Amino acid sequence: MTVLILTSEQDVTADMVVAELGRLGAPVMRLDPADIPGKAVLSADYAHGDFDGHLSVNGHVLSMGGLRSVWVRRPGDPAAHAAQPSAWLTAETRQALYGMLYSASPAWMNHPGNADQARHKPWQLRVAHVSGFAVPPTVFTTAPKVAEQFAELHRDVVVKSASGPPPDEPAVALPTTLIGPDTDFGPVAAGPALLQRYIPKRADIRLTCVGDRLFAARKRAAPGQIDGRYGETGYGWEAVPVPDRISTSALEYLSLAGLAYAAFDFAEDEDGVWWFLECNQGGQFGFIELETQQPIAEAVALWLSWRRPDPRPPTPRW
Amino acid sequence: MTVLILTSEQDVTADMVVAELGRLGAPVMRLDPADIPGKAVLSADYAHGDFDGHLSVNGHVLSMGGLRSVWVRRPGDPAAHAAQPSAWLTAETRQALYGMLYSASPAWMNHPGNADQARHKPWQLRVAHVSGFAVPPTVFTTAPKVAEQFAELHRDVVVKSASGPPPDEPAVALPTTLIGPDTDFGPVAAGPALLQRYIPKRADIRLTCVGDRLFAARKRAAPGQIDGRYGETGYGWEAVPVPDRISTSALEYLSLAGLAYAAFDFAEDEDGVWWFLECNQGGQFGFIELETQQPIAEAVALWLSWRRPDPRPPTPRW
Repeated sequence: MTVLILTSEQDVTADMVVAELGRLGAPVMRLDPADIPGKAVLSADYAHGDFDGHLSVNGHVLSMGGLRSVWVRRPGDPAAHAAQPSAWLTAETRQALYGMLYSASPAWMNHPGNADQARHKPWQLRVAHVSGFAVPPTVFTTAPKVAEQFAELHRDVVVKSASGPPPDEPAVALPTTLIGPDTDFGPVAAGPALLQRYIPKRADIRLTCVGDRLFAARKRAAPGQIDGRYGETGYGWEAVPVPDRISTSALEYLSLAGLAYAAFDFAEDEDGVWWFLECNQGGQFGFIELETQQPIAEAVALWLSWRRPDPRPPTPRW
Repeated sequence: MTVLILTSEQDVTADMVVAELGRLGAPVMRLDPADIPGKAVLSADYAHGDFDGHLSVNGHVLSMGGLRSVWVRRPGDPAAHAAQPSAWLTAETRQALYGMLYSASPAWMNHPGNADQARHKPWQLRVAHVSGFAVPPTVFTTAPKVAEQFAELHRDVVVKSASGPPPDEPAVALPTTLIGPDTDFGPVAAGPALLQRYIPKRADIRLTCVGDRLFAARKRAAPGQIDGRYGETGYGWEAVPVPDRISTSALEYLSLAGLAYAAFDFAEDEDGVWWFLECNQGGQFGFIELETQQPIAEAVALWLSWRRPDPRPPTPRW
C-alpha cells in the first residue's frame, strides 16, 4: 500500500517526510499535478460496477487499489507544465486526477473539501469557540460604524487580513497591526476588515497536530511585539508540553473540521492563557522541527503509512 | 427564519422559487455575493463564546440567528461589482461571507464543499456504481494506448468533456461525439480524454431530486441522436413515473454525496434501462417545469423553508 504525496518539485518539507517513509519501508509516490499530462500518465477505468485507476511517474506505476493515503502538500495546478497550458486543460485534468483519487477513498491529509472550509477564518473562530479555546473578540465587517464601535469598546485593537497578503507580485508583507480608536474607519466600506482585540503577549505558541499527536512550541515575544511572523527578536522556538485542556480542544477542533493535520497559532498572555489566533490546515512545520527537534516529519510519515482497518466506505463524508 | 438565496440579478429560475416562497409566507433574502462590499453590507461578531452576524441588502437586515437555509444558485464572485475589484478583495470578501455562513450552520442546498466534490465526473461514476445505477463502461486517460484498447473493446464509443466546454469567449459547443476504433488516439497524451461506451438510446431522461422528492422527465430521441442537449428533434419533455429501483439509487446517491439537490441525466436504451450519464448538483430545472408542469420550484421552496429540528450541530460534516 502506497503513500501519494502531491507537491511541487522544490519542497524541502516533503523531502523530510519522504526520508522518514523510506526509513519505515513504506512505498511512496511523489507527484506534481502540474506534470499531468506529460511526465505523469493517468488512467481511470469504470466498468461492471468496479473501478480501477493508475498513476505513472517516471516508469513507477501506482494502482488505485494500492493507494493508502494522500498528502496534499503544495500541489501545482493540474496541467500547469503542459506544452500548451490553458484554463480548460487544467479543469479537465483536475477532474480526471482528483475525481480518480476521490473514487479510491484513501485516507486524506487533508481532504480538499475539508481543507477549503477550514481556510475560512470566521468559521475557524466559531469552531475554536465550540472546541473550548479562548478566542479574542473579533469582528469581520464592511460597516464603518461597526468597526468604530468595536474599536471604542476594546480600545487596543489589531487589524489583519483574513485571506493573507495580496497574491500580486512583488509580494507585500501584511503584518498584523495595532490601531487606535481614533482611526478613520471609512475605508472599511470598500473591503471587509478583520478587527480583533489585541492580546498583550509574552510568547507565540505554535501547536502542530498530526492525527492525535500534538507538538507544541513556544517563542518568547519581544516587549510590544505585535506579529510574531515578522521581525527578529533573538528568541527561538522551544518545545513545551501541551496542557491537557488545550489537547482536548485541539482534538475536538480537528474532529469537527475533519482534518488530519493542522497548525494552530496562539498568543500566550501574561497569565499564561493561550489565545486562539488561527488554525492553518496546511501550516509549515519544517522550521519548527529544525529548531525544536520535535519528530513531526516522522509523525506525518507514520500517519500516512498507518494500516487502517478495511474496508473503508467507498465515499467518505469527510 | 429566513431563506437566503445566493444568485445573480438575472435568474428566472430563482424568480420562480422566490414566488413560491412568497406563497408559503416564508421570509427570503436574495443576495449576489458580487454586491459585497457596496450594495450589501456584512458584519460577523465573535465574542464571549458566542457568534452573531448580519447581512443587509437594500435596508433589509438578516441576522445569522434567523438564517434557516442557503440556496447556492448562481452566485457571482464576491466583490466582483466593487468599485475597485481585485483578486485579493474577492478572496477577503469570500472569507468574510462564506466564513460567516458556515459559522451559522444553515441547511445548505448545496454545501459548497459537497458541491465541489460532486462536480468531479470520475467520482460521480463511482458513487453511481455504489448506489446501484447502471453505468456505461468509461475510461479517463492520458495514455493513447489505453484509449485505443478501450475503443477496440467497446467498438461504439463516445468522447466527451469532463469539465464542460472551454470557458473561453466566444462560447464553443462541445457535444458528445461518436467515434470509431480507427480514430487516432495520439492527441490523448496532450490532455485527458473521457471515453464511454455508446448507449443507443430511445430517450433522454432527466431526474430532478429535491430532498427526497423526485421528478422524472423523458424526451424521445431521434434515431441515431447522440447528445440530447443539441439539435431539435420535435419531441418535448414529458413527466414519467420514477421506477422504484431508480428512486432507491437516487436517494442513496444524494446521501453519499451529501447533496440536497441534484439533476441526473440518463440514457434510456431499447430495453428501457436507464443508464447513468451524469449528476449535476446545480442542474437547471426551469425548462423541465415549464414543459412538464412538475412543481419543482415549489419543492425547492418547501425544502428551503422547512422547519428542521433544532439545534443542529454547530459545524456540519456535510
